[in-house]
Amino acid sequence: MTAEIVSIGNELMDGFTVDTHAATMSRILAECGIDCDHRQTVRDDWEVLLAALREALARSDVVITIGGLGPTGDDLTREAIAEAMGEKLVVDEEFEPKLRKFFEDRGFTYTEPQQKQAKRPECGALIDNPYGTAPGVMCEKNGKLAIAMPGPRGEFVPMAEGFVRDFLSQRASGSVIVSRTLRLCGIGESQAETQIKDLMYGEPRIAPYAQVGELHFRITAKAKTREEGVKAVDEAEHKVRERLGEYVYGIDKTTLEQAVLELLKEGKATLAVAESITGGAMGERISSVPGASEVFLGGVISYVQDVKEKLLGVSHETLEKFTPVSDQVAREMAEGIRSRLGSTYSVALTGNAGPTSDVGGRPIGVVYVAVAGPDGTQCTEYKIHGTREDVRRRATQNALVLLRQILLDRGV
Amino acid sequence: MTAEIVSIGNELMDGFTVDTHAATMSRILAECGIDCDHRQTVRDDWEVLLAALREALARSDVVITIGGLGPTGDDLTREAIAEAMGEKLVVDEEFEPKLRKFFEDRGFTYTEPQQKQAKRPECGALIDNPYGTAPGVMCEKNGKLAIAMPGPRGEFVPMAEGFVRDFLSQRASGSVIVSRTLRLCGIGESQAETQIKDLMYGEPRIAPYAQVGELHFRITAKAKTREEGVKAVDEAEHKVRERLGEYVYGIDKTTLEQAVLELLKEGKATLAVAESITGGAMGERISSVPGASEVFLGGVISYVQDVKEKLLGVSHETLEKFTPVSDQVAREMAEGIRSRLGSTYSVALTGNAGPTSDVGGRPIGVVYVAVAGPDGTQCTEYKIHGTREDVRRRATQNALVLLRQILLDRGV
Repeated sequence: MTAEIVSIGNELMDGFTVDTHAATMSRILAECGIDCDHRQTVRDDWEVLLAALREALARSDVVITIGGLGPTGDDLTREAIAEAMGEKLVVDEEFEPKLRKFFEDRGFTYTEPQQKQAKRPECGALIDNPYGTAPGVMCEKNGKLAIAMPGPRGEFVPMAEGFVRDFLSQRASGSVIVSRTLRLCGIGESQAETQIKDLMYGEPRIAPYAQVGELHFRITAKAKTREEGVKAVDEAEHKVRERLGEYVYGIDKTTLEQAVLELLKEGKATLAVAESITGGAMGERISSVPGASEVFLGGVISYVQDVKEKLLGVSHETLEKFTPVSDQVAREMAEGIRSRLGSTYSVALTGNAGPTSDVGGRPIGVVYVAVAGPDGTQCTEYKIHGTREDVRRRATQNALVLLRQILLDRGV
Repeated sequence: MTAEIVSIGNELMDGFTVDTHAATMSRILAECGIDCDHRQTVRDDWEVLLAALREALARSDVVITIGGLGPTGDDLTREAIAEAMGEKLVVDEEFEPKLRKFFEDRGFTYTEPQQKQAKRPECGALIDNPYGTAPGVMCEKNGKLAIAMPGPRGEFVPMAEGFVRDFLSQRASGSVIVSRTLRLCGIGESQAETQIKDLMYGEPRIAPYAQVGELHFRITAKAKTREEGVKAVDEAEHKVRERLGEYVYGIDKTTLEQAVLELLKEGKATLAVAESITGGAMGERISSVPGASEVFLGGVISYVQDVKEKLLGVSHETLEKFTPVSDQVAREMAEGIRSRLGSTYSVALTGNAGPTSDVGGRPIGVVYVAVAGPDGTQCTEYKIHGTREDVRRRATQNALVLLRQILLDRGV
């Protein structure tokens, strides 16, 4: 069973919009065990679209289109699929009254363009779209299956991840692909790979993906049923954890900030921050986690030297003697905010993110992270390469990794 | 002159990587005045890639490939272009010694796979790649032009925006496309459109793009020369500014935080923040601008109620009487941080971003932004719809818009 994706829209072909939906759909196909070697992207143009669909139907068993289902004259997908499959377009008698009611209830006009959205190929069916007026369209004929989904993100993603994924997964029969991503921090890619090299090229496959300041291993199993696949992935995960468990902070969509907040919550501990180089980015990351206020108290953004003294009580002598970008100042920042807010732990960051090459004699990319807690204060120096944005992002990442390590060492 | 883009890579077809390069290249083609109706994305597979290239060469004058130029066995683009165009692959005698030296200088092996990167179709040429070992490849034959670029972002973007853009722009002869984006804030899309409706459908074309809490107008002129195009865009920009000038905060890549910092810098003013709902996101945005420390002093993240009293001096009575999410608390936060840090201006944000529906009786999405300055304190209430992330992003956006308005009103 082979599939092909056709993305439709002038906004894509003008380069104003990046085609993230195609990637989402590709991933879903892979996870359903359906081969997809080919994608096309085309303009809202009748001839171009029709040729693309004909080619895709000739080449692949399943053709999935994204976009062009709306009410305007530009939206041609419904018509082009019917034409390419040699089908008449008809109004879906069951759906049409609901569509009419939707518009009339809101006092909108309901005429030809709106009614278009209730049409489908005669032998086809509509796919429910709870998040918009244009339903998806499905049509199967002569051993070929076409599925058309709307382009707006809020409509496409639920339809693709819901009905379409389930439908294709059942249809693909035989093999489904189950994936899981293990997220590691505090260990380098080559070091981690060395430890699980013998596991990586077997079945399930384990592939490394280096991320900013962390490492992901994606486990992918091909199996007859979802249950078998999950079992194979569980076993592979267990083997990886036996060797690298201390570095695995979470799976799939878990973020490092979530994992660290979870550890703090388990230990009934609270956290405060004192940020210089990151200007609020550390607090932003931590407070982005829903429910963060159970753990995160707040902190101080001491962007200029003066504020380090005023709000954190860093001593003037320390600042003068060691400069604001120093081990000593990071420690006093962490201890200052911890004592002021009475938090169990605190994290302080100071460094030079550029653009000028020198803050108190320290080159761009030097960052000090201090963590103060019940067992005292630890401070680590990092040398980070990259842009201003990279340095700031890596700084918060390193701070979270260090804090996690301290929490684990203490057995929270 | 028509062009087609072929993106190559298993990471794209597995959905692990979103194809941003295709969008970048589409935009460049549009700006060069070259029609592009069709893109393809294919796996690192010899048969699939070759078929895609043959089809593209049959259909379009220019075929641009992205990816597959590296040294590994997966990298097939160079070979496939030669095959599709009926050309022999030869080693580029001028480039090969440089490539060999690069590897030998670093003590790396230099054998067959590495040498592959010095090969090109016999009638073709290499495109200089200062950021990697794999140069681009160009080949012209029988009225068809193929251009192959490497996939890594740091290599693709400079080559596409540099040599390839210039080459295609010259080649496209006659018409170049010049674009500029005007960035507006503080005015809604429909209100802004009403005021420039008569300008939007002429030449140059002016198209609106609604963004989070702001509005972009993209001016696009088609002209014989770049100079003529720039002149036409200048004139259109002038006309838009005559009507909407107060809302235009910048052009192209200027961000709102940059524009606001620039205004503060002009007025020799400084800024401090007091953040509750945004947890540091406001400081993060402001300090992301290089050179922010001339203006931005820092602030307090008062994520929990207690910290509002301890570090900002918000009165316990105000918190009890009005709740932390209130006009009164926002004002006291702004005034508290301003007096503590001695800044010219300060911004305070408090609100409820969810996930629980109720903070002190206020529903999710209610945000208060207060700005304190030499003329007193202003506070505005916003009701923001969307996810936790949306609410926080919109909150910082609204705060920047409000601060900008206050600075402009004062004639800073």
